[in-house]
Amino acid sequence: MRGQVVLFGDSITEQSFRQGGWGAALANAYARKADVVLRGYGGYNTKWALFLLHHIFPPDSGRPPIATTIFFGANDAALSGRTSERQHVSIEDYKQNLRKIVLHLKLGRRALEQWFHVIPRLRVQILESATDECSPTMQIVLITPPPVCEEGRHAYAKSLYGENAMKLPERTNEVTGQYASACVETAKEMGVFSVDLWSKMQETDGWQKKFLSDGLHLTPDGNAIVYQEVIKIFNKAGLSADNMPLDFPHHSEIDAKNPEGAFQQKFYLSR
Amino acid sequence: MRGQVVLFGDSITEQSFRQGGWGAALANAYARKADVVLRGYGGYNTKWALFLLHHIFPPDSGRPPIATTIFFGANDAALSGRTSERQHVSIEDYKQNLRKIVLHLKLGRRALEQWFHVIPRLRVQILESATDECSPTMQIVLITPPPVCEEGRHAYAKSLYGENAMKLPERTNEVTGQYASACVETAKEMGVFSVDLWSKMQETDGWQKKFLSDGLHLTPDGNAIVYQEVIKIFNKAGLSADNMPLDFPHHSEIDAKNPEGAFQQKFYLSR
Repeated sequence: MRGQVVLFGDSITEQSFRQGGWGAALANAYARKADVVLRGYGGYNTKWALFLLHHIFPPDSGRPPIATTIFFGANDAALSGRTSERQHVSIEDYKQNLRKIVLHLKLGRRALEQWFHVIPRLRVQILESATDECSPTMQIVLITPPPVCEEGRHAYAKSLYGENAMKLPERTNEVTGQYASACVETAKEMGVFSVDLWSKMQETDGWQKKFLSDGLHLTPDGNAIVYQEVIKIFNKAGLSADNMPLDFPHHSEIDAKNPEGAFQQKFYLSR
Repeated sequence: MRGQVVLFGDSITEQSFRQGGWGAALANAYARKADVVLRGYGGYNTKWALFLLHHIFPPDSGRPPIATTIFFGANDAALSGRTSERQHVSIEDYKQNLRKIVLHLKLGRRALEQWFHVIPRLRVQILESATDECSPTMQIVLITPPPVCEEGRHAYAKSLYGENAMKLPERTNEVTGQYASACVETAKEMGVFSVDLWSKMQETDGWQKKFLSDGLHLTPDGNAIVYQEVIKIFNKAGLSADNMPLDFPHHSEIDAKNPEGAFQQKFYLSR
């Protein structure tokens, strides 16, 4: 009955329903209007996210989301040759993977055929469920990774591993910035929205501790930035919560002596 | 793919994704395991909730929720002859309405037939969609209304209406307590779980301000109590998040050189 807004991403999405989280804030803003669905996968990069696509967004669902946020890159940007190397994805692959995700969401079967070579063994299964159109009307927002505070990452590693913590950073702000640019470019190229979180956060003095809890993940203030930026885009995309109808009558519209009246309006019963 | 936990109730449910909210805390606890679906309707009593039942819980959905919280009563307990009179539902009707909700969720068509007389004009529509079984395995938790702080309610009314605020309370803690007892009794009678929030909160000194923001709605501390009590029941009911599998491999199980391996396990692909 209601539209769905899917939050697809890594740990920064998975944790978005913690205290002060941006996902919970969206769910609150869209209460009685749209369902906010959490699809966050801690530690995932875009390469691994591809394996989830046809499960999370089955092309023949008949009820695709009205909007999806795609929020990867913090793990893709982990440096090769450092402790988080296994999560590393090259910038070119990161862009290509984002394209595949967007194509799958917007175009369905035609798009799927372009990336069959990536997961050949899933080909049959995907073909069986694919349709020609997935959801050309879905609003898509690519979110760049947040900036990285290398000092914060090191302090966090030391808190876990003490003196055994690797001295060399596993992520740098500079390299993550390159992924952020790649994300914004890809969004432009594909004609979808983007939030340049990496740049936005660094506009504020003291972003390192104000917005980041461990040099990478978000504080409540950091979550508030994501929420504000995503809401701005949703408003621009015609998905303003203020302009969406309530799913059922507001209680003040219900006549206590004849409650049926409010519920019999075509609007509610036709759905 | 994932199970759903539906939160069905009035404003205290609708607001449960605000900062520190119990709904958001549940969504966080079940991230990657179950979807927490917000179905809160501010101002609604159990009588009006009945009109939503077949929309929110269609008996033929094929994928009924694994658990539902039913959290009404704060409005039913509004006093007759006072400012919120239109929301008032008698205790007997409150119990009967809770029974109808539980019957609908647990039994489907057979139960529906028992309450057709309530909404005769919807009868045909309901009959068309009803099946013999809705979800006999769904776990149901009835939650009593929280206690009422009459002083807090009055201060809130004064903040809105100044000296025009009605002197007589529209809700009293004593009367709400009778609804809470009725809720617990009904749960026992129907063999479903309950949380006696009204009693639980009053075990703590200063509950009036610690748990209630305006004498009726919940502070973050009040939300924490709801969360803790609901989680206790879910754990008892075999729905402990700790014991539920992740929907997809944990990132540490993914071999960077052969990511397909982790995703090809029957467990993930068979769904």
